Amino acid sequence: MNYEDSGTPTEISQTFRELVVQRYALAMPERLLGSPASDGTLDELLAHKSVRSFSDRPLPEGTIEALVAAAQSASTSSNLQTWSVVAVQDPERKSQAATWCANQEFIRQAPLFFVFIADLARLTWVCEQEGSPGEGLDYFEMFLMAALDATLAAQNAAVAAEKLGLGICCVGGARNHPRELAELLRLPPRTIGLFGMAVGWPAEGLTTTVKPRLPQPGLLHYETYGEAAWGDQVAAYNAIMNAFFEEQGMTDHPVWSKGSAQRVASAKSLSGRHVFRQILEERGFGLK
Amino acid sequence: MNYEDSGTPTEISQTFRELVVQRYALAMPERLLGSPASDGTLDELLAHKSVRSFSDRPLPEGTIEALVAAAQSASTSSNLQTWSVVAVQDPERKSQAATWCANQEFIRQAPLFFVFIADLARLTWVCEQEGSPGEGLDYFEMFLMAALDATLAAQNAAVAAEKLGLGICCVGGARNHPRELAELLRLPPRTIGLFGMAVGWPAEGLTTTVKPRLPQPGLLHYETYGEAAWGDQVAAYNAIMNAFFEEQGMTDHPVWSKGSAQRVASAKSLSGRHVFRQILEERGFGLK
Repeated sequence: MNYEDSGTPTEISQTFRELVVQRYALAMPERLLGSPASDGTLDELLAHKSVRSFSDRPLPEGTIEALVAAAQSASTSSNLQTWSVVAVQDPERKSQAATWCANQEFIRQAPLFFVFIADLARLTWVCEQEGSPGEGLDYFEMFLMAALDATLAAQNAAVAAEKLGLGICCVGGARNHPRELAELLRLPPRTIGLFGMAVGWPAEGLTTTVKPRLPQPGLLHYETYGEAAWGDQVAAYNAIMNAFFEEQGMTDHPVWSKGSAQRVASAKSLSGRHVFRQILEERGFGLK
Repeated sequence: MNYEDSGTPTEISQTFRELVVQRYALAMPERLLGSPASDGTLDELLAHKSVRSFSDRPLPEGTIEALVAAAQSASTSSNLQTWSVVAVQDPERKSQAATWCANQEFIRQAPLFFVFIADLARLTWVCEQEGSPGEGLDYFEMFLMAALDATLAAQNAAVAAEKLGLGICCVGGARNHPRELAELLRLPPRTIGLFGMAVGWPAEGLTTTVKPRLPQPGLLHYETYGEAAWGDQVAAYNAIMNAFFEEQGMTDHPVWSKGSAQRVASAKSLSGRHVFRQILEERGFGLK
């Protein structure tokens, strides 16, 4: 479709239709099928599936730098660029990183493990050079800005990797042992690993399935926020996810809402992350 | 290039070369030109430029839903989906939102203003339904997870919008008056607007330029973090940005490192955001 010429697409890509059905299962938003994306332009984004099994095929030279160039092309608040990334390829260090990141084996398999860093260290140094008191750095806002900017960048890296045919998996488990991970990566004060990203070629013969998400009325609000849809949408999504787990042969999986409630039931269910704020303070982040 | 067949690309796309030069100016990483991205696959990502001037051409029906489908296709921690988005199109509400977001006129111009929400309200409700104490929700980790997940989603929406030919601008100014913005959007407890995103057709004849970023050695670390490059890289970047500002006719702009230091010099320089943590607590986020 030539989007410039027409407000309405003339042809709906079959792949797009399939991807939407996979992404929402029972709850396909009707408007999507008449949307400007229905010609397949957004298929690459809609097709995302986390990859947790990698081949031992190495990455071509320049892959890291290409992904970081994409990451740096994302928006960044006031162009302060308060983030950085550590690229771990050394098998021993990567294995140790895996240990600190919920001991996930796919991190050892992947040829590359990025750790995305909320980084106020560089800006602190810049303030020192410029003779600025840098008092703003002591506020919660600046940690948050660093975290948001690192994450905008990371998602661009993820999209870039998938465009190159690579698979990725984000690793929130980097927050399970942040002290140990910081030591391993020699992170200075005012930096912390927010999450990791395993990158590599998907294992041969790997089949992954697009995971359904909440129906759009469960999280997309027009004009003002509304809770009215929660009951119906969560019930619908529970049914969708039950069917998904069954298809995947994951028969012992709890219903989505039950599993989600369990995931946040207690401090203990956060897998060590209940001390993350204290660790931020230890590491020199002001959280005023 | 067929990436499956070869580890080295045979041809370097001219556009890619130009984009890399624009993105890094003096400091083009050599490895990038031999990378698998040099065939142009990543050009769309590298070409990002924030758009702050929009035409009055309306968005085709289904655009919002298409962008949100892309957003929902991003990774999300433990599939908890602790985010949501408010799509503001009503001119009056959008104008009021602009007022609370650093009073930026381009928000009024754009046909669509997304506000991305860190959302623990829905999961709190799920916990209540499931009879879970939901004590994990009282910890800082869960606000952080919600913020990261909202941001992964938002960047996918940004990439999707640009693929459709639209322009976007992220609006951190949504944190300048979060109480007022929350009231305008009727956000319930345990939700907060993290940032906005203006979306629309770039104004006719608008020319924007790719903004150079820090040279890669300033923020990409191999194996372990290193500060050694800061001096050289920041000096190089200051020169790059001086040249960029001059080209843009922005002759009164301070040197990057000086301007960045000023941006965080004091609580006052945070444009009202120095109280963001207190507002999070007011709004029911536990930050243990």
